Amino acid sequence: MSTIKIKGATLFTMVEGEAPYEGDLLIKDSRIAGVGPSIAEEAKEIVDGRGMIAMPGLVNAHQHSPMSLLRAFSDDLKLLDWLERKMLPAEGRMTPEDIYWGAKLAIAEMIKSGTTAFADMYIHMNEIAEAVKETGIRASLTRGVIGLEDDGGRRMAEAADLIDRWHGQADGRITTMVGPHAPYTCPPHFMKEALTLAADKRVPVHTHLAETVEEIAKIREKYNCTPTEYLADTGILSHSHVLLAHAVHLTTEDVKLLCGIKGGVAHNPVSNLKLSCGIAPVVELLEQRICVGLGTDGAGSVTTLDMFEEIKAAAWLQKLRAGSPAAFTAGEALAMATIGGSGLLALREEIGTLETGKKADIILIDLRKPHLQPVHSMESLLAYSVNGADVDTTIVDGRILMRGRRLLTMDEEELLRQASVRVKRITEGV
Amino acid sequence: MSTIKIKGATLFTMVEGEAPYEGDLLIKDSRIAGVGPSIAEEAKEIVDGRGMIAMPGLVNAHQHSPMSLLRAFSDDLKLLDWLERKMLPAEGRMTPEDIYWGAKLAIAEMIKSGTTAFADMYIHMNEIAEAVKETGIRASLTRGVIGLEDDGGRRMAEAADLIDRWHGQADGRITTMVGPHAPYTCPPHFMKEALTLAADKRVPVHTHLAETVEEIAKIREKYNCTPTEYLADTGILSHSHVLLAHAVHLTTEDVKLLCGIKGGVAHNPVSNLKLSCGIAPVVELLEQRICVGLGTDGAGSVTTLDMFEEIKAAAWLQKLRAGSPAAFTAGEALAMATIGGSGLLALREEIGTLETGKKADIILIDLRKPHLQPVHSMESLLAYSVNGADVDTTIVDGRILMRGRRLLTMDEEELLRQASVRVKRITEGV
Repeated sequence: MSTIKIKGATLFTMVEGEAPYEGDLLIKDSRIAGVGPSIAEEAKEIVDGRGMIAMPGLVNAHQHSPMSLLRAFSDDLKLLDWLERKMLPAEGRMTPEDIYWGAKLAIAEMIKSGTTAFADMYIHMNEIAEAVKETGIRASLTRGVIGLEDDGGRRMAEAADLIDRWHGQADGRITTMVGPHAPYTCPPHFMKEALTLAADKRVPVHTHLAETVEEIAKIREKYNCTPTEYLADTGILSHSHVLLAHAVHLTTEDVKLLCGIKGGVAHNPVSNLKLSCGIAPVVELLEQRICVGLGTDGAGSVTTLDMFEEIKAAAWLQKLRAGSPAAFTAGEALAMATIGGSGLLALREEIGTLETGKKADIILIDLRKPHLQPVHSMESLLAYSVNGADVDTTIVDGRILMRGRRLLTMDEEELLRQASVRVKRITEGV
Repeated sequence: MSTIKIKGATLFTMVEGEAPYEGDLLIKDSRIAGVGPSIAEEAKEIVDGRGMIAMPGLVNAHQHSPMSLLRAFSDDLKLLDWLERKMLPAEGRMTPEDIYWGAKLAIAEMIKSGTTAFADMYIHMNEIAEAVKETGIRASLTRGVIGLEDDGGRRMAEAADLIDRWHGQADGRITTMVGPHAPYTCPPHFMKEALTLAADKRVPVHTHLAETVEEIAKIREKYNCTPTEYLADTGILSHSHVLLAHAVHLTTEDVKLLCGIKGGVAHNPVSNLKLSCGIAPVVELLEQRICVGLGTDGAGSVTTLDMFEEIKAAAWLQKLRAGSPAAFTAGEALAMATIGGSGLLALREEIGTLETGKKADIILIDLRKPHLQPVHSMESLLAYSVNGADVDTTIVDGRILMRGRRLLTMDEEELLRQASVRVKRITEGV
């Protein structure tokens, strides 16, 4: 049995009502076997936690990982130029092998910035699943399917195949969802087909919702309702678990429709800013006890996958939107990035807090730096001053994936070389 | 003579119209002696720039450096609670020695995150000047004076003394300004007194302007005008150089009044978000060719002094405000943080670009990391993905202050110890 003990760290468990305290954390195989002020039991491997915060790994609840190859490729363009002139042509040239390396690049960045689990929606999911399996991270994988393009059901068949082949694989680190892309790209019959597949396979649905004002107008014109009402009509909102990405533009009635859904909303503040989409009504969603997590969206829009940027942006924007610094707290932003995300990935019982019995998905943050001293509120430091580079150690499923900022399951140099070589072909002339 | 050669870096000179290119940069004593694709002349010290971007050091155009001791001390509170219940009582307990160490802590963070010059407004400025002198950074120092509190002119006398004692000191790295605090804290006679001092001493004025809606209401009630109109009436806007911090709430008429001022506006996007002040009309100001720089404001509100956070926030917010991703570019944000800031500090001829003859204030950014690959647009990477921890080397006035992330002019461990000990007394019971 593999055993690890983190000694003398400041434990920020994210368990509701529990203040940070100094202590030890014991890991046995993939799970947390003990958390407390002092643990006597010894372990094969000791991690010195002094001067560090130990907290739950961050959960990136909405992503398109291979787009890491297209970061900084088409910023500062209008949405349609960004999509049609740059993203789609480049994505069209990506081979399955490119997608494998793009996913690995994204995973490397995630591990290095404290993300231990992510929800991904893309194509060529077998390659992404291989990358997840090899690197040791945790992921919920979704084959995105677009109703308007599904020639003879090939894509829907791939979605089913992904679930059959990968759900529960890699020691349970991989789970799957069904991904009808968005209300404006999936007509009702197609939405229902996707829903039937999700119900048959007993997996969640992952979709985009109400990201732009253009989408609102399109759905109004086509179906005379809001995108949220459209999803409700198709039955998606009544599914056993649904992950809704964005939800920027919601009416009061829409928020009511979302009350009581199982699953919740993935808020992507930076992508929503960079594409000028707007600010999602997170405070209102949380008031209605709707689960909200944080996602980066793809690197093609957001540029960096550092979840600490999302935490900052989420807190800043809700304060701005509400007109009061007290309207949204550091603790609420951190909860979205951990326990909120665990709820969206349908893993609330498994990850998102440091508790005995849960999976050992843990990060250590080194506080011995000028921008992280002195220590008044640990939550404020984590939400407003820490960035991804402050993560010293990343553990997923009881395995150390990074220590002292060195990746242990990937060859970082080879990875950067592959990214730089492949991208030349992908973007040439685009 | 001290000579340094940076070899084989990607030179991002920030000279208008100049694209990044591979090359060398030669430093002789405090100045840049050459920049180009290849420099034959040898130097005593060689800095290997391969895999790195060399760019002008960032300029933090508005700060209250000793407030680093109060970072993460009172977040998520309403503005008045933040100020009156937490900041003022704690600041009241700070001794000159605390202020010296607080300034040093801020300077350490700035050097480590790529800031090479800053504009500071605080009290006990001799201690801050000593910290600047010792550590090697560049600064424009201002003794903030509040009309309502100036018992018998003591504070204004200190403002004059700071200029006499420190202007041009530390090999010219220190300059000074006169700092009437803000329209709502300085009545007209006091504003004019400060202006007379600035004119007599031939130094700029540094003041706050139109930060909150409460300020707008106060000035309307008292003087029946906007804060900008108030500053114009007192003559401040006609001074030979004026640094205006915030400028969040401006009417179209206010923007017209600011046209043609010498100096410009320090935009503080993160502080403005965290205190729910609003979004400054940066696009409009730039359209009128008003110089705009970026500042963090004090760590008591902003938490981190990492200027790359301000660059991101500035670009994100202007896109959001304008409703178009194309409304504000990565390059514009980077220009505000470099050449814009140099204009605000009245140092446009000396810093802000990499050009022969200018002061050697340079940072090197290590791109060999997963979140900074592949490289499409250098500007996009710098604005949207780089953070302070990616700065490898910081050079000010031709002297290397950090190399390989190690501070060369400060004892980082002692600094963190001082900060942590001092702050206990300062905040006890507050």
